[in-house]
Amino acid sequence: MLKMDIKDEVIKLTNKAKQASRKLANLSCGVKDKALVSMAEALEFQSEAILKENAKDMEAAKTSNLSPALLDRLKLNESRIKAMADGLRDVANLPDPVGEVISMWKRPNGLQVGRVQVPLGVVGIIYEARPNVTADAAGLCLKSGNAVVLRGGSEAINSNQFIVKILTEASVPLGIPEGSISFIPFTEREAVRELAKLNNYVDVIILRGGKGLIEAIGSEAKVPIIAHGEGNCHVYVDSTADLSMAEEITFNAKVQRPGVCNAIESLLVHQDIAQEFLPTMIKRLKEAKVEIRGCEKTRSIVSAGIVPATQEDWKTEYLDLILAVKVVQGLDEAIEHINTYGSSHSDAIVTSSYANARRFLQEVDSAAVYVNASTRFTDGSEFGLGAEIGISTQKLHARGPMGLVELTTTKFIILGDGQIR
Amino acid sequence: MLKMDIKDEVIKLTNKAKQASRKLANLSCGVKDKALVSMAEALEFQSEAILKENAKDMEAAKTSNLSPALLDRLKLNESRIKAMADGLRDVANLPDPVGEVISMWKRPNGLQVGRVQVPLGVVGIIYEARPNVTADAAGLCLKSGNAVVLRGGSEAINSNQFIVKILTEASVPLGIPEGSISFIPFTEREAVRELAKLNNYVDVIILRGGKGLIEAIGSEAKVPIIAHGEGNCHVYVDSTADLSMAEEITFNAKVQRPGVCNAIESLLVHQDIAQEFLPTMIKRLKEAKVEIRGCEKTRSIVSAGIVPATQEDWKTEYLDLILAVKVVQGLDEAIEHINTYGSSHSDAIVTSSYANARRFLQEVDSAAVYVNASTRFTDGSEFGLGAEIGISTQKLHARGPMGLVELTTTKFIILGDGQIR
Repeated sequence: MLKMDIKDEVIKLTNKAKQASRKLANLSCGVKDKALVSMAEALEFQSEAILKENAKDMEAAKTSNLSPALLDRLKLNESRIKAMADGLRDVANLPDPVGEVISMWKRPNGLQVGRVQVPLGVVGIIYEARPNVTADAAGLCLKSGNAVVLRGGSEAINSNQFIVKILTEASVPLGIPEGSISFIPFTEREAVRELAKLNNYVDVIILRGGKGLIEAIGSEAKVPIIAHGEGNCHVYVDSTADLSMAEEITFNAKVQRPGVCNAIESLLVHQDIAQEFLPTMIKRLKEAKVEIRGCEKTRSIVSAGIVPATQEDWKTEYLDLILAVKVVQGLDEAIEHINTYGSSHSDAIVTSSYANARRFLQEVDSAAVYVNASTRFTDGSEFGLGAEIGISTQKLHARGPMGLVELTTTKFIILGDGQIR
Repeated sequence: MLKMDIKDEVIKLTNKAKQASRKLANLSCGVKDKALVSMAEALEFQSEAILKENAKDMEAAKTSNLSPALLDRLKLNESRIKAMADGLRDVANLPDPVGEVISMWKRPNGLQVGRVQVPLGVVGIIYEARPNVTADAAGLCLKSGNAVVLRGGSEAINSNQFIVKILTEASVPLGIPEGSISFIPFTEREAVRELAKLNNYVDVIILRGGKGLIEAIGSEAKVPIIAHGEGNCHVYVDSTADLSMAEEITFNAKVQRPGVCNAIESLLVHQDIAQEFLPTMIKRLKEAKVEIRGCEKTRSIVSAGIVPATQEDWKTEYLDLILAVKVVQGLDEAIEHINTYGSSHSDAIVTSSYANARRFLQEVDSAAVYVNASTRFTDGSEFGLGAEIGISTQKLHARGPMGLVELTTTKFIILGDGQIR
């Protein structure tokens, strides 16, 4: 498609979203919840047709030699469609964040000043191949009163477009304004670039994608972006740690699902217990096919089959069955290492020392800091936020798992009886 | 100065700020407050020397023909220095936002999950000619545990550099890390551009400057920016308004200080009371030398000496004794007009109708929405936030007057006893 046509279409679509967002912001929770339930029913009712569209995507993906992991992400089946529908019903059951007066106080001159939660407006979401994100994101944005402009991975274009069509047809008759859930039907990157320039229409873009995508768009974006950055996460085993607890946490954080952002990439071990801890730990990891890259001290303790770790290893998010291991002198070095090489995502200490737990919690500058638990819990549902639109590795506006509240902003309301300055 | 040298210096300085920020984040409130008081004393003690530096700036400004208004902003005197010192003492008396656990809850698996307020890290502040902002911003950033990199207007370079020197000398001996308060000594715009690219060191830039500056930097910035945008503010006088209250509020919002962002630029009047309200209102405004630009209906009510308002007028922030006046059919048109032409800063309704007040509060999409009070109250101190680092016209992270809390972010802390997934 021509660049100009893409541009025009994206502008048209986001403009419509902006109009819709004004009405959406003032819909009652009852209307939104009924629409969410109707959307869930429609997905289930039309599951056969969805699977047909998904089959087209799968066919195309196979001819273009997509990896088995990506194929699996792309694939829908009855139970995955059911899970999408249940997700929408869950969102319907969450409390509505819109209109909540967070606080209100009275000034000496009699003015009442309060802060109210309101929708952001138009939220752009750019995501990878999984078509279930389409329904999840649409549901969360609708519940929080935002219009959403979706742009999924090009591999899932047929599935995504069809899902959006179903969600729209199920919600508009129930009072949801047209344009509330829209989808950019262009696979060209130009479409995303254009979207990121439309700061008159789009209030924020949530970027769930690779590093390349973030850099490509980030440099020319005018719309503020909340990005899922890397997860270079750590477990630090303190000298006072319960070593069997440390072993379970380390194993879980590395092995249970190595391809996700809250899995660990590095293990830091206090020198006083390294001799006792590392041999069993490394043996167990190796049995689970984890490649170990160790510092010099690690390799002096467990010599066989350990690749020497380089400076590069401390910085790397493997997203794979690889673990960098470093023996440290103590808590200071552990904190310094994490704050230097980590990506400020999720980091854990295993310790029985109150003072060390307290220092780790205070001094590690990450979105999620753990004592005696696996980093794998960094997730909206696991934290009890109800649902998750993504995990922010930024500090502004939202940090860590983002739930419905993070899809809102606030405004001040001021009630007077004639006050002037 | 050569571009490369500026670049190197800005990098060096922000790198040092980053190092300082790590220590600052964990300082106790007591240490910070003592430093703030010492900084206040030092400013007063050295006021003569400050005035000498300020005289250099004033001299240069006069030769370069700065406007009287800008000269007044630039000028310091004993009482303005006293006010700067008192500002620092006020900040010392505010509660420390750092370390506050906003909420903490328990998950079914026994994990405790909490959210703690923590400093942003390094805050860049780019501001206009007034040297008092230097002390205000340094104080607020210190109290909130952030390192600050200041870049004031080039006209105030001597005053600003000297004030930063005093603040640093007064605080470092009391335990504030060197590099916590730093100043970019280059007047070239290149320095600001460089700062805005250093997203590895700088966590946010607060931009208090003209539209030109915002656009110039915004397009190539990698650091997230919180901008003071325009204030195109409105008063809407409803058909049910107490007309003498409406007159007082309108007059105050336009005339009391027309050059600031929370002054109004447009007055909207319900058609049913326009005939009764406008003649007196316009007479009083004209007596105060306000130029009126009216819609056709306004001009049919008060014909003499009213400039016809154009489409452009509805969009314009005059920052001057000019007021655009429009007669509207009712609340719907007023809300539509404000959401279309306004800048989402501060907007007020004057009404005695409960239903109209409620609708206006809900449907006007602005940082501050008023019922029966002047828009001039949009200000951190007036709202009771204690102090103000700026007024954000954005929706992300901070909206409206920004106090100490807006200089923080949060992190999740998770306390377990061995939980794994």
